Order: sequence, then structure tokens, then C-alpha cells
Amino acid sequence: MSDNAQIVREKLDQAVGILNEQDVDAWMVFVHETSLAPDPSLPLILGADMVWLSAFIITRDNQRIAIIGKQDTEIVKAVGGYTQVIPYVEGIRDILAAALTDLNPRSLALNYSENDVAADGLGHGMMLLLQRYLAGTGLPERFISAERIVGALRGRKSPAEVARIRAAVATTGRIFTQTGEFIAPGVSEVEVARQIHAYLKEHGLGVAWDKNGCPAISAGPDSPAGHGGPQEQYKATPGAVFHMDFGVMEANYCADLQRVWYIRKDANDTIPEALAKAHAAGRKALLAGFAALKPGVAGWEVDAAARQTLVAEGYPEYQHAFGHHIGRAAHDGATVLGPRWERYGQTPYGIIEAGNVFAIELGIEVKGYGYIGLEEDVLVTDEGAVFLSEPQTAIWVI
Amino acid sequence: MSDNAQIVREKLDQAVGILNEQDVDAWMVFVHETSLAPDPSLPLILGADMVWLSAFIITRDNQRIAIIGKQDTEIVKAVGGYTQVIPYVEGIRDILAAALTDLNPRSLALNYSENDVAADGLGHGMMLLLQRYLAGTGLPERFISAERIVGALRGRKSPAEVARIRAAVATTGRIFTQTGEFIAPGVSEVEVARQIHAYLKEHGLGVAWDKNGCPAISAGPDSPAGHGGPQEQYKATPGAVFHMDFGVMEANYCADLQRVWYIRKDANDTIPEALAKAHAAGRKALLAGFAALKPGVAGWEVDAAARQTLVAEGYPEYQHAFGHHIGRAAHDGATVLGPRWERYGQTPYGIIEAGNVFAIELGIEVKGYGYIGLEEDVLVTDEGAVFLSEPQTAIWVI
Repeated sequence: MSDNAQIVREKLDQAVGILNEQDVDAWMVFVHETSLAPDPSLPLILGADMVWLSAFIITRDNQRIAIIGKQDTEIVKAVGGYTQVIPYVEGIRDILAAALTDLNPRSLALNYSENDVAADGLGHGMMLLLQRYLAGTGLPERFISAERIVGALRGRKSPAEVARIRAAVATTGRIFTQTGEFIAPGVSEVEVARQIHAYLKEHGLGVAWDKNGCPAISAGPDSPAGHGGPQEQYKATPGAVFHMDFGVMEANYCADLQRVWYIRKDANDTIPEALAKAHAAGRKALLAGFAALKPGVAGWEVDAAARQTLVAEGYPEYQHAFGHHIGRAAHDGATVLGPRWERYGQTPYGIIEAGNVFAIELGIEVKGYGYIGLEEDVLVTDEGAVFLSEPQTAIWVI
Repeated sequence: MSDNAQIVREKLDQAVGILNEQDVDAWMVFVHETSLAPDPSLPLILGADMVWLSAFIITRDNQRIAIIGKQDTEIVKAVGGYTQVIPYVEGIRDILAAALTDLNPRSLALNYSENDVAADGLGHGMMLLLQRYLAGTGLPERFISAERIVGALRGRKSPAEVARIRAAVATTGRIFTQTGEFIAPGVSEVEVARQIHAYLKEHGLGVAWDKNGCPAISAGPDSPAGHGGPQEQYKATPGAVFHMDFGVMEANYCADLQRVWYIRKDANDTIPEALAKAHAAGRKALLAGFAALKPGVAGWEVDAAARQTLVAEGYPEYQHAFGHHIGRAAHDGATVLGPRWERYGQTPYGIIEAGNVFAIELGIEVKGYGYIGLEEDVLVTDEGAVFLSEPQTAIWVI
């Protein structure tokens, strides 16, 4: 069995368990030409692209039905894990309506969500099409959002998934170490990014987010922090900070870490007080969030623990969430460890579960020196969070 | 200006022209965390990923407004082409509602479509969110599908886009030639695919569709045709056909070609009559479709010209469409050169335009020998179609 097939089996089994736990009869992933319009759930339950309109129906009594274009039959059979594979040629409509009518679920969960983009894989046009295809069957009235199902399925990493994230985190850590050897006064952000991209290419590794901003680098006091692309004009500057936010995608799973260096003015130079103090405060806040990160806690409570600690240390609030799931994407959807701001919708109200993997992060802008960002990757266990990365405990020196 | 920025400028200008031509006041691409849930239109008008809820509004009077998360400001400014870049921190709702109310468009085109997956980038949950955000403004009542706008924008390739596709087609042609040198009796489908993937990796090239089925290979009489993954059990077989469907993605643009070889039993063996005849009939049908492919013609008419020719030659109809757009995806959405079957929705009714680039294809299963597939890439000009690939005029011999 391929690696992909193994994860798909684990996730399909997990999905059946979640349907039972949430008392939902059936969940359907309805897709079309997925290389163009991917549904984020499909890699979990299939791991291949479909060309025609396709429906993957999973039921609480453990049926797994794939209704797919004839052309895609071999691909779906090769993945395995489906109890029925039904190919069609001219149209999916009648076969789909018959299969669903036959199942007669009390409710049918579909991938739409106002909050979680990972659970919003069904296009609005696809929804209109489905409503039209199933008109008169009584089924559209039973549509519900699969938000909670997808959130649980993506969020609870299986052992194989955790192993892959762990590998991606380790690789990312090694690349940070190598990058530290490459950085020298006058080396530009673009040069560092180019060096890293060359290494990735050579080793067949991907980036965890948009390549133009991965790594995201802030060299010196004037380079804006954030996910902006590296710029030639900003260079490693003696007496200032060099900050990098970066993660690899390895075997389809991501890491997301931040590290900071201080570029010494000369051999006798040491880390300025203002930087050491800011980093220590950032670390205290990060550890406060880390300590709060336990099964049963709401996302916003974890953010609040870190945010309040930072403010109590005399620094301004960071303008983003403290943490986000990582997995197949660097921002893997579902519960956000964030403040209850409008842009996070309902996601900060999600409840932490064992098996969740988060990147936790925060940062402080230190005037005249640059950006101090801290970010680590952690796994939630029944007993609390454990680090998957080796935390940066102090600013590194160059 | 980067290559990407150049295409984005061309496409933004084109979009304004299309809005005027179609008499639509404004088109909005509304996205969220696009690395997880990409909208197929975003690469055309931005070419970067956004992390937060973001809105890109283009108007017929040439305003291009980007309302984006603060974190993404540098990325959007670096791309350029937008007349206003409005960053937000806590939420997009009020800024978006104010900007749209201010524009007061008679209609606001959004990316949803029952027919064209490339125009269906707005998730159903995102639509619900937008309706909620704009409730009471009178705007949701003015939402219309951007299907025709997106179809025209994706379909009419700019000169820079055609140049990229041409390069991808040339590279794909070279890989087919190399593959012909590698194929020998007993070489398995998996070995050929592995060889090609190694070449792609070495040269930093991507695949035009799902890697597991790109190349798709049918070696010998028993290997099923279609996009199924290469299998170890099927090998290049003397006295039978070796068929491959493949395309690279190079600089984000795709090619899609099919080629067939005949594996001779010995040095004196020649192509069997049944194969030569099938290939000649296939080629006649392909050229009939090619001749019909002109601006102003409907997609289904092109398919019918090829389909009827093949049937008149005494072969069964192929069970797919004759042609599809290629571009950023191997199946690039919009008009399909296909029969008026349910699964193609309204797409075969689309009208061909100059600047369209299609892959045109058909195939014949020859019992005892294997699959004869023909596929070429063509550009539609005002005078009719021209080949971007060097057409295969007869079965190649090994």
C-alpha cells in the first residue's frame, strides 16, 4: 500500500468515527476537475485528482461510495478504501440521485463553511448544481454544513500524519541552521531566499506557503515584517536583527517556524539589552500560550494567555492569531488560537483536541533593530502540548 | 517587472475591456487563505496567495481595488496593477461594504458557475458570508455570475500566455522524443513514468495534471486507457501499441499531448494494417475537428465534426470531449469542444474566440493491440486554428 493510501485509510476510518460521534448520517464531498478547483478535504479521503464531476459519500454505518467519471475508475480503485466505486459516462445526475435516495440520510453534510476555508470546498455554483440535480428528492432540505466534521478530521492528526509533520519540522530546523551559516553582513534577503530555494529544489522539497513569501525575511530595522517577498534592498545589517519565517512542505505536510539572529557589529559586540529583553518577553508569552494549550480549551483562551502575558511585559499586542493548525497546509483550517476578532469568524471558539498540531507564534517590533518573531510547532496530547520543534530560547548571534 | 507582474497587467487590462464589452459594472474576486482554497481566477489577476479574507474589485471604468489583510500589503504592492490597495487588521466587513456601496454597481459579478469550474472559485460558505456582510446594502440582490467574464479572461490568451504555452508544448514534445528512445520491449509503464519524473525533477519542470496519472500510459493490449496511473504489470509488448498521454507545466502553463508507438516483433515487422487504418481514421477525424475550429463556432459543432468523421470511418464514438482549453491548467475551464451531454453542462455551447488555446484529442481502442490516442495543442486565430505542437502523422515504430 502506498503512503498516500495508508493515510487515506486512516482518515476514512476516522471520518466514520466522527460521523457517529457527531450523529450525522452521511457526509458527501462533491467535486469537479479538482486540479483546477481543489476541495481541501479530497487529499484526506482520496489523495488524487478527479477530472469529471465526482461524489464521495461516507456514511455512519461505514459505507464509502465513490461515484466518478469512468476515466477516473482506475485511480480510485488503486487508492482503495471505498466499498463501492460507481463509474459513469454521460452524466452523474441520475446515479447520484439514486444512490442518495437509497441511503436516505436524515442529514447530508456538505463542504461549506463561513468560518473555515478548509471546510468550504464546495463552490457556490456546485451547490446550485447539486440543488438542481436533487430537486424533488427532499434531499436539499437536509443539507447541513460539514464544518465540524472537516474540522475534526483535518485537526485530529493520525500517527502517520504526525510522523510526516515531525519530519517536515526537522528538515526546516536543519535549513534554519544552514541559513545561519550563510548569513553575513551585507547578504540580502533575496540572496538568502535564493540559497534556500536552490537547496529545496536539489532535495525535492516544497515550500509550506506561497514561494514568493516563503521564506519571509526581515533583514535590518527597515524591512517590513509579514509575509512579503524578500527584497534586494534589505540586507543583513550589523547591529540589527535578521528574522526569517519559513517552513518546508515534505511528503505533502508542512512546518512553520520563525527564527531571529543578531548581526554583531564586531567580535566584541553582544546582543543589545532592548533585543534580549524583547525576546525574553516574547518567549515568556509564547510559553504562557503553550501552557494553556490543552484538550478542552477554546482557541481564544490560548491566544489570551499569550497576549495578556506580552502586554503585561510592556509590549503591544501582536496583530494576528497566536496559533493555527498545520498539516497539509501551513494554515490548515479549523480552530484558530486567535482573538475574537471579526476576521476570525467562529474559529477562535473551536475546542482544542488531542492530536491537533499547531504553529504558535508572536512577535515584537523593536525600533531601530528590527522584528523579533518567535514561532514553534507543537502537538497536543491528552496531557497538554509538546514541542515538535526545538524551541529557540535566545536570539542567535552572527 | 517580473514575468508574473507582466501577465497580471495584461489580464487586468483585458478584464476591464471584457467588463465594457459585456456591460457589467464590476467584478469581484473574494477569497480567503488561498493556499488552501485557491480561486482559479486569482493567479490571473494577482499571481500570489492571500492569507486573510481579501477582495479584488475591478470596474468597467478601470478602477482596480484590492482590500486585503495588512500582512499581505507588500505582496500586493509588489505585484502592482491595482489603483487602490486598502489594508485592514481586525475585519474586512465595513471597509468592503463601504467600498462597494461607494462604487454602487448596477451588477456585481462574482465567481460562481454551475458549468465552469474555473469560474466557480467562490465557496458556498464564502457566498453566505458575503450575503451576511452586505445585508441591507442592496448589493446581494445585484450579484450575478462572472462565468462569462472569467471564461473570456481565461480563454483569450495574451501574447505572453501563448508564448508560455508554446514553450511547454515544445518541452513536452522533446520529452516524448526522449521517451521513444527509452521504450524497449519489456520496459514497464512504471519505469517509463519514473524516467520522465526524474527528468522533470532535474529540470525543475512540473506536470500538467495529477502526477500519479501524468504521464498516463497504456502499454500493450490489456492496459486500460484513461488517466489511470502507470502499472508495473503492463510493459512495452512486441506486436502491440505503447500509448502515452502527457504534458509538462512550465512557468505555470501547461501542454497536453498524446503519442503512440508500435513495438515491432522483429526488424522485419511493420505496423499492422488494423493499427495503420485506425490511426489514419483518427487523424482524419482530428483534422476535421481542427478545420471546424474557428472564431464564432460553438464548441459542440467542433466536436460533432470530429465525432461524425470518426463514426463515418467505421469506428465507435470516443467517450469524452474532443477538446478543452489549456493554459494554467491542462483542463483550463470555459468552452468545451464536447458533445451536448449532461456532464458538460452548458460548456459545449460556448463560442470559440481568437486567442483560445485548445488541446484536441480522440482515440480508438484496437482489440488485441491497444489504444490509439491522438492529441495536439492548437491556437485559434482570426483565420482559424494553427498547431502549436508538431502533429503526429503516423504511428511511431520501435
